Parts: sequence; C-alpha cells; structure tokens
Amino acid sequence: MPNPNNPALHSWIDIPAGHDFPIQNLPFGIFETPERGPRVGVAIGDYVLDLYAVSQFGFFEDLDIPSQPKVFRRPSLNAFIRLGRPTWQAVRLRVSELLRHDNGTLRDNEEAVRTCLVRQREVQMRRPVKPANYTDFYSSIEHATNVGIMFRDPANALLPNWRHIPIGYHGRASSIVVSGTDIRRPNGQRKAPDAAAPTFGPSQQLDFELEVAFVGGQDTELGHPVPLQYAEEHIFGLVLFNDWSARDIQSWEYVPLGPFLGKSFGSSVSPWVVTLDALEPFRVPGPVQEPEPLLYLRQTGEHNFDINLEVTIQPAGGPETVVCESNFQYMYWSMAQQLTHQTSNGCNLQAGDLYASGTISGHTPDSFGSMLELAWKGTKPLPLADGTERKFIQDGDTVTMRGYCEKDGLRIGFGEVRGTVLPATPL
Amino acid sequence: MPNPNNPALHSWIDIPAGHDFPIQNLPFGIFETPERGPRVGVAIGDYVLDLYAVSQFGFFEDLDIPSQPKVFRRPSLNAFIRLGRPTWQAVRLRVSELLRHDNGTLRDNEEAVRTCLVRQREVQMRRPVKPANYTDFYSSIEHATNVGIMFRDPANALLPNWRHIPIGYHGRASSIVVSGTDIRRPNGQRKAPDAAAPTFGPSQQLDFELEVAFVGGQDTELGHPVPLQYAEEHIFGLVLFNDWSARDIQSWEYVPLGPFLGKSFGSSVSPWVVTLDALEPFRVPGPVQEPEPLLYLRQTGEHNFDINLEVTIQPAGGPETVVCESNFQYMYWSMAQQLTHQTSNGCNLQAGDLYASGTISGHTPDSFGSMLELAWKGTKPLPLADGTERKFIQDGDTVTMRGYCEKDGLRIGFGEVRGTVLPATPL
Repeated sequence: MPNPNNPALHSWIDIPAGHDFPIQNLPFGIFETPERGPRVGVAIGDYVLDLYAVSQFGFFEDLDIPSQPKVFRRPSLNAFIRLGRPTWQAVRLRVSELLRHDNGTLRDNEEAVRTCLVRQREVQMRRPVKPANYTDFYSSIEHATNVGIMFRDPANALLPNWRHIPIGYHGRASSIVVSGTDIRRPNGQRKAPDAAAPTFGPSQQLDFELEVAFVGGQDTELGHPVPLQYAEEHIFGLVLFNDWSARDIQSWEYVPLGPFLGKSFGSSVSPWVVTLDALEPFRVPGPVQEPEPLLYLRQTGEHNFDINLEVTIQPAGGPETVVCESNFQYMYWSMAQQLTHQTSNGCNLQAGDLYASGTISGHTPDSFGSMLELAWKGTKPLPLADGTERKFIQDGDTVTMRGYCEKDGLRIGFGEVRGTVLPATPL
Repeated sequence: MPNPNNPALHSWIDIPAGHDFPIQNLPFGIFETPERGPRVGVAIGDYVLDLYAVSQFGFFEDLDIPSQPKVFRRPSLNAFIRLGRPTWQAVRLRVSELLRHDNGTLRDNEEAVRTCLVRQREVQMRRPVKPANYTDFYSSIEHATNVGIMFRDPANALLPNWRHIPIGYHGRASSIVVSGTDIRRPNGQRKAPDAAAPTFGPSQQLDFELEVAFVGGQDTELGHPVPLQYAEEHIFGLVLFNDWSARDIQSWEYVPLGPFLGKSFGSSVSPWVVTLDALEPFRVPGPVQEPEPLLYLRQTGEHNFDINLEVTIQPAGGPETVVCESNFQYMYWSMAQQLTHQTSNGCNLQAGDLYASGTISGHTPDSFGSMLELAWKGTKPLPLADGTERKFIQDGDTVTMRGYCEKDGLRIGFGEVRGTVLPATPL
C-alpha cells in the first residue's frame, strides 16, 4: 500500500515549498461558500478539496463509506469521524492518490477539477467539530512549575499529585469558536488581595494560553476504560487551541472547584484537523517520567510529537511580534496517557470530543505559552515591535498561534488560530 | 385563559390522591416501547400521553408548532425545548385541556385514547435531554460549610468567595444517565494522607449527592449575558439529580483544577422534567444573602422553590431506609442567580444544558445530602433498617431520590432517580 506520508510524493497542484498543506498533510475541516456548504473539505496547498463533490463524482465509489455523499455535507466533522479510523484512513489515502502528480483520474477531468477544488481565499472555514465534551489538561511541567512558583511556594512549586496524575478539568464546550472569531473581553468578579470586597467589571488580566488539542475519534461505553495501548486509536487528529483566560476572574473564583468563568467566555480552535496519521513521521520520545507512573499510565515507545509552535501579538493597525516559540514535544504527559486517564474511572468518550493539552511552555522564558508567564505576573512587561509593551492582552490586539512539523525535508503545518479582542460589553 | 395549575382541576383519567403526576403537573420526558419511540411523552397518573400520537390525531393542529409531529419523535427533548417557551406553554395548556374531566375531545375518541395513552409500566424511560453542556453548582451554604469544617478550618469553614459567587464548575456531560441505569464503582487513584504514593483501584468512598438540576431552555449568543430579570425565561424545567462522587479519587485529584474523575463516572437524572410553569405555586423567598450580592446578582421576589426531597438506601435484597430528608428551598443561590452568573462573562447557553444545584443539605444532620456529611467523614456510621451500617455506599446498594411539592391541597411530584452500584471492573 502506498504511504501517503512519503516525502517524495508531490501533487499536480502547484504547492510552494514550505507550505502548511502539502500532499503529505491532507487535514480535514468544514468549509462553506455562498453556493455550497457547510461541507467536509481537505486542505491542499491554497485549495480546499470538496469531499462532497469528490464523492458525487464517484471517486470514493469503491470505498465502503456508509451514507456517502451526505456524510460530507454536514456542519461538523462529527458524523465523518464516527465512521471510524479505517474510513478516515481510506479517505485520506484515496485523496492522496487523486492528488498525486502521476494520477490523471481527477486531474484530467476538467469538470471535476472545477467542481471539486475551491480556492481557500473564497471559502469561510467553520468550527471543525461540534465538541461533544471538552477537557483541558495541565500537562506541561514547565507551565505547572511556573504557575506554582508565582502563586504558591517556589520551593514546592509542583503540587504532590502532579507527577502521578495528568491533571485536567472539564471545560465549557459551547463557547469554543473557530479561528477568526472575535473574542469579547469578559466582565466578571475580581478581587485584589488587599481589597475588602470584589467588584464586577471588565477583566484587567486577559491572557492567551498556547495549547494543542486532540479530537476524540470514537464513542465508547460508560464503564469501559480504554487501555493505554489502544488510546491512540481513539484520536482523530490535532488542532491548535487558544485557551483564552481572564486571570483576575480565575484567581478569585477557582478555589475549590477549579476554573469556570475565567475560561468559558471563549476558546479558539484552528479550522484544519491534522490527522494523527499525518503526524506519524514526527513522533519523539516524551520526557522521562519520574517517579514512574502507576501501571495503567505506564508507556513505552514514542508518544510525543515534535510540533514547532509560535504565538504572535499584533496591536490594531500595528506590526506582528513573535512573543513565544515553543514545542509540543515538551509535554510531560502524552495524549495517550491523558485519554486513558480520562477513561480510567469508566467515563465514556464521544466522537468529536476535544482534549486540550494545557499551556505548552518550554524551558526558556521565550518559550512560555502565556502572558502570565512571559511577563511573569506583570513584573516583566513584554516589548512589542511597535514600541508599546504588554503585561496582558489589550483591546484590539490580535493573537495568532501557528504550528508546523519539519523533518528530513518533509514539512507539514497546522495553519493558524487567530482571534482579535473586542472591548467588554458596557455594564 | 384557564390556569393549568388550578388545584380544582381533575382529569377523566383515574389518578389516586397523592400521586406524583396529577393534571396540574404534566412533566415532559422521552419514552420508548418496542412498537414506538423514542418519543416525547407527558406523564399523567400511571400513564404516558404520547405527544407524537396526539399530534398525529390533529389535537395540536391549531397550535403553531414548527415541524410537528416529528419534533415529538426524537431521542431527546432538545428539539422540542428549542421551539421556545410559548410553545412549551401552549402544549402544556392543550394537554391540560385534553385531559380535563369535562373535555370529551380525546376522552370520547376510543381509537385516539387507545393510541395516545400508554401505561408507564409498559414503557422504557430514556434520558430526557442530551445535555449540551453540564454545570454543577455548589449553592447550599449548609453543604459548603459542612465540607469546610471537615476538610479545612471549622472557624473559617466558608471560603472568602462563597458568599459573593455562585461557585460552580463544568462537569462531564457524556456520562449523565437516566434513572435505573446501574452505576459501576469507579477505579481510580487515591492516596491516604500518610501514604508515600498513590495506588490505583476501586474507590473506597463512593457517595451520592442529592441535587436538583434545571434544564436550559434557549440558545444564547456568545458575548451576550442574560440579565437576572430574564434568567427564569431560560429555564425549561427541573429534574432530580444524583451527582455520584468518589470522595477518595476526588480528594487526591482536585487541587488546583477541581473535581474531575471523582465525578465523571456517572451522574443520574430522573426521567420526567417538571416545568418551571408547574412549579409556580411553590415559589418561596430564598435565605437572606449577606453581604448583599453585587448588582448583577441582586434579586427581589421569590426565586426559590419549596420541593421536599428524600434519599433512601436499599441494600441488595434488603429493605429501604430513608437516610436524608431535605428541601430545595434551602439553596442560598437561586437558579436565576446561577444562570445569570454563568453568562456574566459572555458564555453562551444551549437548549438542553443541565445546571445542577450542588448537594442540597439542610440545617439538621438528618437533612444532609451526602454520605460524607451524614456519616461525617466516616466517623458516624449510618444505621440501616437491615441492621448493617454505612460510611459510604456499598456494591449492590440502590440509592433512590424522590421529590414532591405540596401546598393548599395541591401536590405534584418528580418521580424518582434511582441507581444500583455494581462492583468495579477488575484491574
């Protein structure tokens, strides 16, 4: 069987070197145009391949895809994902074949090319999945340590449970939006440590969190944990994730039940889901886990992924400044461990679930994944290219996150997740 | 317009006095039989009124109900709820009319009666809503105080934010199940305070939490808070809710991000949603809130509801023991305040959301809503009718919660939420 990740493959579609979406990537998303959509598409170079149209032209006819073509004309990927891993893989492989430079099936069918390919600049991307449930983990040891130093005890920055449990919490699924959606600064309760009582008003400490989220690929039954060796079969793919956070609201509300309104005003996802299959070449070992995790979380092999990440801030009308360069491979707990832990009590999974990594901070101050850490709780304001500086995010600022993998001449990218902050609603 | 809550109303269906489902109640649910369903039904005495059949017979013909009859042939109430409050009210009023002793429209149509009414003992009840999102609040001051005394400082049992914020957290929606579903004891990590390291195994501290949940009635837009005076318009109705909890898993995992696997192995809801309209006669003032809440949470009038609640434990093959008698009117924060707080940062709501109250404890030890409090952290084992005693819930125990309102000769009930605990899956 041909390997769709083969670095030597190239497409009859002209794709500049270094593009996020070469033929080895083929991420899935939901696009819409005034004439068509919402539909399932695959990104290829500067185009979207319309899978509904591809299916209508019969190019998937010999594949066993239940309820095609209509599974490709949906407002989310959930129904497609629910068809299962063999179907995702068969579709990705067929799309790879149809787009290869030496395959004329689609290329030489002028009407099909005109119908199946749409320029990305002509489409509106939608939220790729309707998140059935959303969990936010806390799996970067550097981030957890930084937060512990700032808010608790520098000598005991990591809490006692952290090296034993992939700590996480349930987040709000309804407020997850696609890249490009403006984010309104939240109002909320906050109380300065020396204030007698809280006040209600616009958050003064609006932050981003650089995260990667994976999309759950299967429904499981309540009471049936997923063993670690099968965990990755439950992962459809990955997106970039900005877990917007209002630090002042969060710090006043979060004891004892965790983050709530400090997070639920909006979370942004990138529109293209890069499949776990496309990421295979970029596996790396994770950090050594010490003490060794309990048996149900003990893993061997390479379960981390080398994904370069960056964050930029662009003030309204100003230039963009890179404020953070990090990498997904730093995660202490792997996605497989997170997923298995989530189900270890019998909790059931649903196709289209989102599981975010938690803020991805690296070892060095320029790799920290939030303003809280980059400006160290406001004590080290961050200079921007326009001469201003930031402790937190200001109204009008656009925050953009990008990610890509690169190895042995093969490069695939995630595109971006972007959001502009609007002023709070007046009280 | 006739008042469907009028205590003088009675039905041509024979309903014994003291029944949970007299003509003044008319709760909505999802039922199924081998021949029909899942369908929307209304409970009346020992029967279910099949709204799909009622619609097919044309009894709703003059009501403006979009997409009837098929909105009544769905696996959840979500689509019906999304039609909006005027539709819920119109349907409830029409059902009340059709069932009144002096109305022959349905009563005298033998075929319609045979088709539209099904005995409850012949139906399988389903989960009433597919919870889009699930929030669990912590709004009983007695419960929060008890927990504070046990785990923190008796002198400062309530945390500083508690009287300012209706504290809550996001829960797992996927594992919410209907009454009658067995609950498997979760495995999980737990660590005794004096142990060097955690172990993984069956929870030794399985608990119930007596709660009432409300069902969200409308989709709202992200960035658009719901002001307090409109909050109740967003509530479709109420169910009984057992927030099963594994205390040992919870206490090891919950710092700093809140409860996670200690809760997500299962939560049980009663099948019949009692509408807020049916509960109108049972409004009562809430407790005095001191200090006065911030402006966005400041309310006047009666926003609590007088609902008698009880919990029983029945060991396998043994008799049932009432272990708790409480009342929903004890809640410090009202449902309206909870809902407005949830949206105060711009978070959007979805029809079919579930918002649980948190454990409903009263002032006296026999009104505490969890084993944790009833047996005071295992120090006061609770005697059962069969001569055994309980610190927490054992395998084979069935926990049942019931609720009803009673005033001036009018009584309406919630039915029950029941679950039997199965042994943990062997490791």
